[in-house]
Amino acid sequence: MNNGKMRIIPLGGLDQIGMNITAFEYNNDIIVVDCGLAFPEDDMLGIDLVIPDTTYLEENIDRVRGMVITHGHEDHIGAIPYVLQKLSIPLYATKLTMALIEGKLQEHELLDNVERHVVSFSDVVKFGEISVEFIKTNHSITDACALAISSPVGVIVHTGDFKVDYTPVFGDPIDLARFAQLGSSGVLALLCDSTNAERSGFTNSEKTVGRAFDNIFSDHATSRLIVATFSSNVDRVQQIFDAAQRYGRKVVLEGRSMVNIIKTAIDIGYVRIPDGILIDISEIKNYPDEKTVIITTGSQGESMAALSRIASNMHKTVSIKPGDVVVFSSNPIPGNEKAVFKVINELSLKGAEVIFQDTHVSGHACQEEIKLIYTLTKPKFAIPVHGEHRHLMAQKGVAVDVGIPKENVLILSNGQILEIDSESAKVVGEVQNGAVFVDGLGVGDVGNVVLRDRQRLADDGIVIVCMTLEPGTNIVLAGPIVMSRGFVYIKESDEFMLEATDVVRGALEKVQDKNITSRNRIRDNIKDALSSFIWKRIKRSPMILPIILEADGE
Amino acid sequence: MNNGKMRIIPLGGLDQIGMNITAFEYNNDIIVVDCGLAFPEDDMLGIDLVIPDTTYLEENIDRVRGMVITHGHEDHIGAIPYVLQKLSIPLYATKLTMALIEGKLQEHELLDNVERHVVSFSDVVKFGEISVEFIKTNHSITDACALAISSPVGVIVHTGDFKVDYTPVFGDPIDLARFAQLGSSGVLALLCDSTNAERSGFTNSEKTVGRAFDNIFSDHATSRLIVATFSSNVDRVQQIFDAAQRYGRKVVLEGRSMVNIIKTAIDIGYVRIPDGILIDISEIKNYPDEKTVIITTGSQGESMAALSRIASNMHKTVSIKPGDVVVFSSNPIPGNEKAVFKVINELSLKGAEVIFQDTHVSGHACQEEIKLIYTLTKPKFAIPVHGEHRHLMAQKGVAVDVGIPKENVLILSNGQILEIDSESAKVVGEVQNGAVFVDGLGVGDVGNVVLRDRQRLADDGIVIVCMTLEPGTNIVLAGPIVMSRGFVYIKESDEFMLEATDVVRGALEKVQDKNITSRNRIRDNIKDALSSFIWKRIKRSPMILPIILEADGE
Repeated sequence: MNNGKMRIIPLGGLDQIGMNITAFEYNNDIIVVDCGLAFPEDDMLGIDLVIPDTTYLEENIDRVRGMVITHGHEDHIGAIPYVLQKLSIPLYATKLTMALIEGKLQEHELLDNVERHVVSFSDVVKFGEISVEFIKTNHSITDACALAISSPVGVIVHTGDFKVDYTPVFGDPIDLARFAQLGSSGVLALLCDSTNAERSGFTNSEKTVGRAFDNIFSDHATSRLIVATFSSNVDRVQQIFDAAQRYGRKVVLEGRSMVNIIKTAIDIGYVRIPDGILIDISEIKNYPDEKTVIITTGSQGESMAALSRIASNMHKTVSIKPGDVVVFSSNPIPGNEKAVFKVINELSLKGAEVIFQDTHVSGHACQEEIKLIYTLTKPKFAIPVHGEHRHLMAQKGVAVDVGIPKENVLILSNGQILEIDSESAKVVGEVQNGAVFVDGLGVGDVGNVVLRDRQRLADDGIVIVCMTLEPGTNIVLAGPIVMSRGFVYIKESDEFMLEATDVVRGALEKVQDKNITSRNRIRDNIKDALSSFIWKRIKRSPMILPIILEADGE
Repeated sequence: MNNGKMRIIPLGGLDQIGMNITAFEYNNDIIVVDCGLAFPEDDMLGIDLVIPDTTYLEENIDRVRGMVITHGHEDHIGAIPYVLQKLSIPLYATKLTMALIEGKLQEHELLDNVERHVVSFSDVVKFGEISVEFIKTNHSITDACALAISSPVGVIVHTGDFKVDYTPVFGDPIDLARFAQLGSSGVLALLCDSTNAERSGFTNSEKTVGRAFDNIFSDHATSRLIVATFSSNVDRVQQIFDAAQRYGRKVVLEGRSMVNIIKTAIDIGYVRIPDGILIDISEIKNYPDEKTVIITTGSQGESMAALSRIASNMHKTVSIKPGDVVVFSSNPIPGNEKAVFKVINELSLKGAEVIFQDTHVSGHACQEEIKLIYTLTKPKFAIPVHGEHRHLMAQKGVAVDVGIPKENVLILSNGQILEIDSESAKVVGEVQNGAVFVDGLGVGDVGNVVLRDRQRLADDGIVIVCMTLEPGTNIVLAGPIVMSRGFVYIKESDEFMLEATDVVRGALEKVQDKNITSRNRIRDNIKDALSSFIWKRIKRSPMILPIILEADGE
């Protein structure tokens, strides 16, 4: 591992949404950029979270110098409490990002175990022969940064998730001058956010949403307002506070993550609220409707979030009244559309007016912004990151448009080892990678066999056959009983279930005729007979589980 | 039921997508408009189809005079084979619609059981005191019609699903003149399609898609083309045939419903194809790539459809090669986004270029078209139909904008009985309504208990405890065995499962100490002990099923 080349190893985040984590390796030094989680796909039944497989880092722990975080979204920080239990390495992040990570570490009782460093923009941190500079960007969460990762082979720029916002709500615009300086000195490779690479044009400034809120507050001066948005978008929440102040409304924060994140942002001075404007949800009854605004989680239709509970009358304090105005300050993330529409329908049924136009902007760069970054940094190699394959390919198109030679645009897959220096960039191998399922307290204990079983159970349920045999023989001492769950017929006394029991009895008679005593063969015979009976009769294939007990000590 | 009022009873289709069916009732006569299915929601695990509960019609079968169908989409005709098994009534539809229905009846071996009448536009059919006129409209399937439903109380116009296409690919534009004549003579109520009522402007003509195809065919003259679209959109398919002919390509139809529907449309002369242009998929190997186009199902990412099988290398004849061009001539229906993106990513990974811009137009009227129909028909009452509640409310906004008094816009729910005459319209009651689940060959045998169980099984799996007791006592003769499926640990020999067995043994000892012999109480004790053990240890709550066998005849 001493060949004088930089290795870039994306352990997650390509060809998928979430779970961003990339290793950068030069000789004896490895740094890790981001450590995100993914939310389960539809076919990952019962799974709570998905985190990256970090076996490669664990096996090379003696060379891993630290973890650098670009911003505080779940797909970049969510796996930290799980991964840092296995990797004892220092953590570097900007102020808000670190505050959010600390909240997570505290929940997992890990705060004292992790060495943490809060960095500022322009800081440069050295990790052996690698050094990392933090560069100010804009995104849908404050304190996002790009990274300039230097090593003897050159400078690699990683944009993180970004947009170009010339008029941000908090702090400065993206540090385009620094991108330009880096470009002038020479950038070896650019790893650029691909999320919106299919979209032409420019992403609107966060400030445009503030203007939309102004209109909504002034048009609905006599209604209660409920605004659902992402709890991590602290600038969005700031703008709702600002509008509330202008229009004389008290603000309630509702939903666990909304309360946690915004209180954190207030604590560190990233959200500024006028005295007395923030009230507790228990106080809302003391104010007339037109003097309150509720900022809530649930903009993605999440069934347990506050807005969904409000919409379905399951919330303990707030329920919808005709005349309420509910604003979705968000777009549905692909896959959440139906859940969001369900909540909108419920709200509308209860008489609320639902507004979802002009009340959201994306946090990711569209094509013109991506072109700007390429033009400023003038990288030799382009490595599109952050997106499904279609997004990476869309960025490839943009990169080629601005003059990067096609062969210098590298579309990687998770786990691939890209070796790069000023001469060349090529994939030289692959490391272990993949998704680890978190289910309840278990990490990695639910695998594909369990998921396949859950799918089968979900589709057609289970039929259980239970009996006691005399040890060593095939003589039935008790049973057979046939039971089912999630199948069709609910009671054991249903005609169909009685027939099914007869089928099992028939199979047992055949087993006895043939003098079969092997438990496995008996189980197989029962399974075959029962599954063919069920398929013939009702064209279903539930899981069939024959259980044979042995009578004790007879 | 002889009060001289018209009753309108939507049995499905409101507050949901699909399952359109409405009863119109005047004194002794009932007609049914449409009879559609719905596709299962995400939480309807294992369900194949959803059809409407038609108990009300069955109970009043002596008064039901016939079923009138507006067009041949699944959400309007899909439940016919199920419902007409229970209701023996004549069926009225236009030519293509009837041909598609006949295909379904044939599959269910019901063709000889159903009295069928093919109608033409402007035909009037009498059903006792009710008469129905069929009016030409445009939609994303040919032969769609609106209905003018007359009774002594006045004329009710039902638009069906429609758009206004001044330049349709096949046949005439919507018969606006007839809508205007009806409006001049007086329309009591308008039931109007709400699908696109949230969208401003006008839906583009189907012809604009033809122009997009022309560009795609000319821009990709050296590539194989694969176009995915809705099999029922015969005009879309016609335009692809037309482009293929202009650019000298052979056409392959792929996917069961694509082949069935387009062959039906060709048979009745609704799709016109030049001699020799249509080839079988087995012949495609005889032509160079740039001389073929494959029209396929799977534009919604359906996992078993031809395009998904092609994308994942599971198709027996076609697989993707770098340079292939795949056109999605469709938009994802809400809820299908992730599945569609998954297919796009797979295609893109294999080197195909994927095109999905300007290659689709909606079949439903936007706000300006809806306003046009209101302005022509000038109804006294407006009854928004076809859509979720948010769509119905959006149409209410449009209706009020064009001058319908707010109180004359009636937002109904499924099952409500609206009584209407020239003086008033009000809800006077409700009939049984709802969704009947079709699972395999079973219709209505899977209910909510089974679905709840399936959800539980999908989330956390099942743990089964099995033992044999001496009859009448609590003495254990065999077992206990603890097994699981879809849970976490797979083998009975896992440490955790052995501990769980000990927990069950402990519970049985307590039962014996307390002299409990009731099987129910023993089961409850085991369940409580085991579920609290599992929750404490790993924060999961699988379904727990204790099974007690009784030793025979001892």
